[in-house]
Amino acid sequence: VDQIVSIADRIVRAGEPLLATRLSSDALAALVAGWPEGQGHPVARLFHRPGSGILPAAAPVSVVSAGTSDQPVAEEAALTAEALGAPVRRIRDAGVAGIHRLLEHETSLREAAVLVVVAGMEGALPSVVGGLVDRPVIAVPTSVGYGASLGGITPLLAMLNSCAAGVSVMNIDNGFGAGYAAALVARLAASAEFVPAPGQAGP
Amino acid sequence: VDQIVSIADRIVRAGEPLLATRLSSDALAALVAGWPEGQGHPVARLFHRPGSGILPAAAPVSVVSAGTSDQPVAEEAALTAEALGAPVRRIRDAGVAGIHRLLEHETSLREAAVLVVVAGMEGALPSVVGGLVDRPVIAVPTSVGYGASLGGITPLLAMLNSCAAGVSVMNIDNGFGAGYAAALVARLAASAEFVPAPGQAGP
Amino acid sequence: VDQIVSIADRIVRAGEPLLATRLSSDALAALVAGWPEGQGHPVARLFHRPGSGILPAAAPVSVVSAGTSDQPVAEEAALTAEALGAPVRRIRDAGVAGIHRLLEHETSLREAAVLVVVAGMEGALPSVVGGLVDRPVIAVPTSVGYGASLGGITPLLAMLNSCAAGVSVMNIDNGFGAGYAAALVARLAASAEFVPAPGQAGP
Amino acid sequence: VDQIVSIADRIVRAGEPLLATRLSSDALAALVAGWPEGQGHPVARLFHRPGSGILPAAAPVSVVSAGTSDQPVAEEAALTAEALGAPVRRIRDAGVAGIHRLLEHETSLREAAVLVVVAGMEGALPSVVGGLVDRPVIAVPTSVGYGASLGGITPLLAMLNSCAAGVSVMNIDNGFGAGYAAALVARLAASAEFVPAPGQAGP
Amino acid sequence: VDQIVSIADRIVRAGEPLLATRLSSDALAALVAGWPEGQGHPVARLFHRPGSGILPAAAPVSVVSAGTSDQPVAEEAALTAEALGAPVRRIRDAGVAGIHRLLEHETSLREAAVLVVVAGMEGALPSVVGGLVDRPVIAVPTSVGYGASLGGITPLLAMLNSCAAGVSVMNIDNGFGAGYAAALVARLAASAEFVPAPGQAGP
Amino acid sequence: VDQIVSIADRIVRAGEPLLATRLSSDALAALVAGWPEGQGHPVARLFHRPGSGILPAAAPVSVVSAGTSDQPVAEEAALTAEALGAPVRRIRDAGVAGIHRLLEHETSLREAAVLVVVAGMEGALPSVVGGLVDRPVIAVPTSVGYGASLGGITPLLAMLNSCAAGVSVMNIDNGFGAGYAAALVARLAASAEFVPAPGQAGP
Amino acid sequence: VDQIVSIADRIVRAGEPLLATRLSSDALAALVAGWPEGQGHPVARLFHRPGSGILPAAAPVSVVSAGTSDQPVAEEAALTAEALGAPVRRIRDAGVAGIHRLLEHETSLREAAVLVVVAGMEGALPSVVGGLVDRPVIAVPTSVGYGASLGGITPLLAMLNSCAAGVSVMNIDNGFGAGYAAALVARLAASAEFVPAPGQAGP
Amino acid sequence: VDQIVSIADRIVRAGEPLLATRLSSDALAALVAGWPEGQGHPVARLFHRPGSGILPAAAPVSVVSAGTSDQPVAEEAALTAEALGAPVRRIRDAGVAGIHRLLEHETSLREAAVLVVVAGMEGALPSVVGGLVDRPVIAVPTSVGYGASLGGITPLLAMLNSCAAGVSVMNIDNGFGAGYAAALVARLAASAEFVPAPGQAGP
Repeated sequence: VDQIVSIADRIVRAGEPLLATRLSSDALAALVAGWPEGQGHPVARLFHRPGSGILPAAAPVSVVSAGTSDQPVAEEAALTAEALGAPVRRIRDAGVAGIHRLLEHETSLREAAVLVVVAGMEGALPSVVGGLVDRPVIAVPTSVGYGASLGGITPLLAMLNSCAAGVSVMNIDNGFGAGYAAALVARLAASAEFVPAPGQAGP
Repeated sequence: VDQIVSIADRIVRAGEPLLATRLSSDALAALVAGWPEGQGHPVARLFHRPGSGILPAAAPVSVVSAGTSDQPVAEEAALTAEALGAPVRRIRDAGVAGIHRLLEHETSLREAAVLVVVAGMEGALPSVVGGLVDRPVIAVPTSVGYGASLGGITPLLAMLNSCAAGVSVMNIDNGFGAGYAAALVARLAASAEFVPAPGQAGP
Repeated sequence: VDQIVSIADRIVRAGEPLLATRLSSDALAALVAGWPEGQGHPVARLFHRPGSGILPAAAPVSVVSAGTSDQPVAEEAALTAEALGAPVRRIRDAGVAGIHRLLEHETSLREAAVLVVVAGMEGALPSVVGGLVDRPVIAVPTSVGYGASLGGITPLLAMLNSCAAGVSVMNIDNGFGAGYAAALVARLAASAEFVPAPGQAGP
Repeated sequence: VDQIVSIADRIVRAGEPLLATRLSSDALAALVAGWPEGQGHPVARLFHRPGSGILPAAAPVSVVSAGTSDQPVAEEAALTAEALGAPVRRIRDAGVAGIHRLLEHETSLREAAVLVVVAGMEGALPSVVGGLVDRPVIAVPTSVGYGASLGGITPLLAMLNSCAAGVSVMNIDNGFGAGYAAALVARLAASAEFVPAPGQAGP
Repeated sequence: VDQIVSIADRIVRAGEPLLATRLSSDALAALVAGWPEGQGHPVARLFHRPGSGILPAAAPVSVVSAGTSDQPVAEEAALTAEALGAPVRRIRDAGVAGIHRLLEHETSLREAAVLVVVAGMEGALPSVVGGLVDRPVIAVPTSVGYGASLGGITPLLAMLNSCAAGVSVMNIDNGFGAGYAAALVARLAASAEFVPAPGQAGP
Repeated sequence: VDQIVSIADRIVRAGEPLLATRLSSDALAALVAGWPEGQGHPVARLFHRPGSGILPAAAPVSVVSAGTSDQPVAEEAALTAEALGAPVRRIRDAGVAGIHRLLEHETSLREAAVLVVVAGMEGALPSVVGGLVDRPVIAVPTSVGYGASLGGITPLLAMLNSCAAGVSVMNIDNGFGAGYAAALVARLAASAEFVPAPGQAGP
Repeated sequence: VDQIVSIADRIVRAGEPLLATRLSSDALAALVAGWPEGQGHPVARLFHRPGSGILPAAAPVSVVSAGTSDQPVAEEAALTAEALGAPVRRIRDAGVAGIHRLLEHETSLREAAVLVVVAGMEGALPSVVGGLVDRPVIAVPTSVGYGASLGGITPLLAMLNSCAAGVSVMNIDNGFGAGYAAALVARLAASAEFVPAPGQAGP
Repeated sequence: VDQIVSIADRIVRAGEPLLATRLSSDALAALVAGWPEGQGHPVARLFHRPGSGILPAAAPVSVVSAGTSDQPVAEEAALTAEALGAPVRRIRDAGVAGIHRLLEHETSLREAAVLVVVAGMEGALPSVVGGLVDRPVIAVPTSVGYGASLGGITPLLAMLNSCAAGVSVMNIDNGFGAGYAAALVARLAASAEFVPAPGQAGP
């Protein structure tokens, strides 16, 4: 915890945005205590404090998930994309075993520039969503499940074999990576004119 | 081939039904030549010649699949169930990436007593079907695919983790087993009164 | 726990049946305290409170297992099938290494419409049972074991390769799913005349 | 082959673009013979014939790879993106064991809106590229290699664990999927104003 | 083939017994042609020519298997044990899905000092046999099967998890090793008085 | 613990031998307290109380292992064989990386009728021992190790591929099974005349 | 802990060097208390007390790693090599996603006779370093990561498939082995004239 | 083949050494025909033609293997080390199941600066050799074997878990890499004075 607070302190003093993920509850409490102007998110196990710079514009991102057990990863993705400046819509009850409920969201799914789709179990949601919208879909398998879910390997493999084109996949439970990648796409979608990338980037 | 023909000959002489699966084209041709009154099915790699007994009544079975590459397995399941006396409906273009086309079959899916659902790739179809109908669903993964499909292990794992209740799973490409299990269920559904099972069964 | 109680409360108020599985002992205690008219089952880690509706008739289900270590999963299956209205017979000491003891149950095995067979270790029981009765067998591997049992992967693989026809398989430790699927079959077996399935089902 | 030609014929008559991948040399020859105005690509095992519609504008895509053995997959990605209207730059000699040669491309890497990075062996290239440019990187593992490369599983796992943020991953050898996803992003990057997605998309 | 014949020639000239396994049909034909006094076994892909020494006495070995597809491995085991001097009884139709047929062999199973049990599919046979006789059981998984049999890994894992005590396991398809180990045990069972082992043994 | 004590009580009252393995320290203490005439072995996590019957004679068994970390499994094997009446010699410092020290035991290795060889890490010891003595070798992999030892899967696989003939393999950490199998062999080696096996055996 | 102290005591009394790795904090504290003249290293979980002999000369070793999470393994390697007499340079911030920072170390990387390269995640660092220097590179994967890092299997596989020649690989987290192997090489590099190895070595 | 000849031509014209590995017999014949002054090695599937430069001095390398089936990989390693200037001794009949024959080589094993140890099956040879000599050992698993050898994964895992310190491991069948790494070490051992590495190396 001390090490995390000390790194955070260095980042804040530099005026840079601070986004800490996969925090223990102790570490989260320490960051909230240290920088009360920032925001702690217990479900996503994440702390965010914006930097002094201005974020680039970004088109809307949708984060789609099925149930409560996938929320920590879905929220990590959503909060990461928001921290990078993208407006995020959350669609939370989109299970493939209740396809009619999922289809009620069809119109709103189409209003996103890029979609993050979070699923455990059989990992089928990205295929269904990818078939409904012709936008980039970033799939995130979760480690929720038991037995033959193999700690998330099953939805990971399923997503890699998606029969919908345009679906790319992140590591298991990697909500941060999905939110980051989605925000990169969303910025491109918002830029009036395209500019080459700045040098040496990434966390 | 000679061994297969000789076993077939023994079965036919005993008046028993003959159902041979996973046949090479040579073996299939030899059976068709030997018993022209039977039926050979090149896609399903299967030969069937009914026995002299009367088959028990059976309720309708649906065999659902997505595309042409899954047809050999789907047909093996359908023909097996038919050989055991069950009326079979085939639903063939039910891909999860085209969910609206799948939903056009919703009514007909509900008319089956039991459903065999065949899928490769991410193996998501049984979850969607299982959510639409409150009937037993027997899922069959196929070895169609490449790379991370791992010869059918990926849809197998996905189906075992289905978020729809009531889905049970067969071995990869085991259309015969699925058709057999479906027919057992369909016979139960058709029997006016339930009778205990006869002894020592199975192929 | 609070979240579970709150979801349970919603279900009970709606007059729907409540079946909660995989409960921690805290959660189980809270449900028992909240709805003393329901029944808690510590071995199966399950709570059940019937709804106000009338359950459809169902033919008898047998739940077969070998030893004490598989009882939590076997009981989860049995109680689930009972909660859905099926009469359940439990056969508990059916190990394949003591085949004569298993065969003492042969007659009673044949009196079920559908059988749930629960096994860990080498997962051989469904093959032996499936060879004795010509009824649908739903096999459930358990995570009991050590070393090369790989947390239940070994009996799962063994069951998928069963040499008895008509055996379909559930995820490791998925007693709920097996009981649910068995009840669906048992209802079909009991229905005097077959009726198409109602829409959008499943938990 | 006949089936492929017949499907192709149907697509061409409908005025739709035709993009056929993973073709055997026979199938490729048949398509080239049938539609000489299209283009066959033996290395990428792909045939393309544009449709009658006008493609949306798209920002530039870079396809980065290391050596000759990865070219079939890299070309499949590049030609797919081009078929969808994106201008593509190919960077071919970018091995991580010759890092100075890779860095000679640094400026040109930054001029792409989105990058497809194709690699076999240890699959390290996406991490290095992802660290150099702050753009979406779509990584494609190839099945090139032997022994512990496990048919591409090793670079697949490596890419999923990339220490560079913003890297998402496709199935092994899935150049088509990567090119398709890249083109979706490139179109967003080029659109002067953002419009919601059209319905029911994908192959 | 030339290399095999040359090694065989060296062994025969030294007066040692010759036992060659896993032979191609060409190699088998060459050995039969070269030493017509020996015996070639096409099913077991094995050639045997006794040496000039006298074999030690050995108690009876039983080799148990279920069906025709396991015969090559079962015969390799049986012929190896015979080549080492053990009398062998073959029990060939002992499938676990037909348990009553297996039990017809119960008496003869008990007459062996040690049993080799060969099985593919779910690999359940050693558990049943091991429960019937209190003798050492050497289990051999075979690579017969498809899909989730994983080339014999499934019966291998199942046998390692046998619920019958006293079952030890050989590599997949290793009939030679099982026959060799069984003969070592059978010699011990036959020795009137126990003598320490000679030095540096093995093939 | 209560359940274990209750089962133990039943066995003791029946005059049968009691051998309990894989005991927690609580369970071990309870058994020692309940039957002080029996013997508890904390390293092997095992309790033994002989029955009232007379054990059959048995030839000597050697239990070979390399270091202190494999002792729990080696002792479980040794004590099991002793409980079944076999005299056991323990050889404990036989690591393959110190081959000269191992060879100092060569003579004593040859004095056993059957050998149990216990090893973790790369699992090489059974091959070296199997090459030194022409006796049955029962190999037991242990879960000692880290990283690529995969909880004992590595020595298990290595032992199954032993280049010494006559080596058969038990499940990971299964000292009980190895001791049991060794005792069955040792009894055969001691019997002046061979008698058919009694029926229905095993724990 | 008592056992460790007792073994340590024996080594120290013999005047031999003491190098204890993978220590719990309790064991480390006990060794520090017992031999205050030695040195405990909490990060590397290692205790070292030199022996009375003179260490052979050794050329310089570099230990390269990317971040703080790999330090325990990197330090274990570095301290082991130092305990064997090699001068060690530590290069700690060499991540492949920040390739320009890594290249700032290029000159110093070339000054080592042999390099230990420690990495988790995608395990790409050894390939980049191996391409920069024509010296032996010993790669050590770490178990740092989550999801598809599979406890270090992913970087292990990646390193085995390194596209840079001369890279050999150690077990996951095996800093000791890497430091030991590097010191053996470094001694060879320092020896004015080459002398054959002494007998029976290794811990 | 044409592509290989064309690349070879470019290398030869530049006066650089040519070392081509993993050649088909056609490619090997073409290289032998094109440059008769070079040397083709059919067993190792390798072609070598020295360059015009002078090779650095190198200390002796030993390449140790057990049997004929491992010779292609062992020869690839030996010829690679020789092509880089190291004198190589081949020790070919060093199986661990015949430990006395292996020990006859003990003196000659100690005369090498570095050893390449090639083994399939259980991969135990590097541990025994590593225990006999205090020199760097580079282990190479081979894909020779069947069933649970998993195409070389088993000896690979075994070698990574070697109980002898100083053993590092190459990819399955990677004789080239082992010979290359051994030559790098052997050059260090021969250099009168140590010089820093030149820049950007590797094939």
